[in-house]
Formats: sequence, C-alpha cells, structure tokens
Amino acid sequence: MSHETFLTHAIDLALTHSADGRNGPFGAVVVRDKQIVGQGWNQVVSSHDPTAHAEVMAIRDAGKQLGTHQLKDCTLYTSCEPCAMCLAAIYWARIPTVYYACTMEDAGAAEFDDGVIYDELTQPWAKRRVAGVNLLRDQGQAVFKAWHKNPGRVQY
Amino acid sequence: MSHETFLTHAIDLALTHSADGRNGPFGAVVVRDKQIVGQGWNQVVSSHDPTAHAEVMAIRDAGKQLGTHQLKDCTLYTSCEPCAMCLAAIYWARIPTVYYACTMEDAGAAEFDDGVIYDELTQPWAKRRVAGVNLLRDQGQAVFKAWHKNPGRVQY
Repeated sequence: MSHETFLTHAIDLALTHSADGRNGPFGAVVVRDKQIVGQGWNQVVSSHDPTAHAEVMAIRDAGKQLGTHQLKDCTLYTSCEPCAMCLAAIYWARIPTVYYACTMEDAGAAEFDDGVIYDELTQPWAKRRVAGVNLLRDQGQAVFKAWHKNPGRVQY
Repeated sequence: MSHETFLTHAIDLALTHSADGRNGPFGAVVVRDKQIVGQGWNQVVSSHDPTAHAEVMAIRDAGKQLGTHQLKDCTLYTSCEPCAMCLAAIYWARIPTVYYACTMEDAGAAEFDDGVIYDELTQPWAKRRVAGVNLLRDQGQAVFKAWHKNPGRVQY
C-alpha cells in the first residue's frame, strides 16, 4: 500500500459522498502501520455540524477506533489541503505528516475560500471580522487554579 | 440574562466537568435570543477525540439543537480565549461574537500552550513542524470539477 493508494482512497471518499450534492467534496483517511484506522468525509450540511470537515471526521474516527486522543504514529491523507480548523486539529492530534491532493488555491478556485480564515487568525481581535470581548477574567482564572490543585488531573 | 450570566455558565461547565481531572478545564455555551441553545466542555481525553474542545462541542450541540450548520444569529461564551481550531470553527459556524474569560496568556501559563498552533498556521509547509506533501493534484481537482457539474450541489 503506497501513499498514492491511501490518497486515492481519500479522493474516492470525497467523490462518492458528495455525489448527491449535499456533502461537500472532501474526503480523508488516517493510516497507521499501513492500515486505514479512520476515515471521514465532509458532513457539514447533512449533520448540521460546521466542524464536520473530512479531516476532523477522520481524526474523530481514528481516535475512537484506536481508543486514544493522540495519533502520533499516524499519517493523514486528504483530498484537499486542510483548512485552518483541520490543520489545527492535526496539531492537536499530534499527527506528524499530511498528504494532500488539491491545494488551497484549488479550493479557492472551487469557491471554498479557506484562505480567509487563515488570514483572520493571524490578526488581533480588533482587526478580525469576529468580535472578541474579554470579561470575568478573574473568575475564569479560578478554574485553572483549581485544575492545578487537582492531583488527579490528566495532562495532555 | 446578561453576558456575565452566560459567561459564568460557561465557566461553571469548565469547573464542574474538569473536577475529576479527566476533562480539561474548559467550558462554552452558544446563546440565541437570550437562550442557551448549545453547551460543551472539553472531552478530549474522556472521548478519545482531539477535536472535542469546549467551543467545538458547544457549536456541535447548537447545530444539532437548531438543525442548522450556520449559527449567524448566535453568540459564543467560553471560559477561555479560543485556540486556533476553535476560532476557525467559530468562523465556519458564522458566529459573529465571542465572549471569553481567560486569555490565551492565562492558558499558556496554565500549560495549555495554544499559541504554538497559531504560530504554526502562519508558516508555509516548509517551516511547519507537521510535514505536508502534495500528491495527485489532478486526481483531486477532478472531484471539484465533478462537484461543479452537479446541479444539485448545496453551496455553503
């Protein structure tokens, strides 16, 4: 099983699951030891879940299959270069390598303009389209203080 | 019901659900028309899901409750300033305003170093810790071409 084989599987998922026009044309698989351990496709519209991108779904599936939130020894194959949400999810999952077919430019040309969100994330709140308001900071910090006093806490 | 009330509810979720040391100390609620329509707390470790951050869980819950992937008329309240994954999810959900208690600096001081991922996203692949490999671009582009020929496609 080559990288091309796994990436083709991700592309096939994108094609198959978007055929009815409901799910966006994106697919992904997570692979460990040359075995597919997770797969996903865009289900944003069909499942009323804006976070249900192909990569996120594949990561969730792999975590469930393997019984862990850390996928350090896995590789992700995706039909399109990950958006900012999915790339951040890849970092949180500790996946070291991503193979992708379409580029972000291809996605933009296909009217999936992921570049805008990357740009927004680099801005301070004052320049973002989303407004951010900081309130009750002391009350929030008390949660972290309680966490650090908890001897049973799981670090990750 | 004030902004402080909803934010306090998010903070309470963080405190309650992290008490056993398993779930990270983060909580969030989504509000529409002064009603809570979604809530979430960090469940990364307990659900083996690296994407199960409080804001993502609250957004998923709201989408399910309201039967839509677009939360344009909602506000998100979160116990801590969103990480890059959660902020991108907020953009995808079209949520216009976020209230947060702890700042990213507080999270960093509490050993939740979200800043690293923000920094990584601004880099080109060559400088990122995660390796990105582009393969089979033509095969990937064929999926977008099929999508654009599909008269039943749902744009979002």
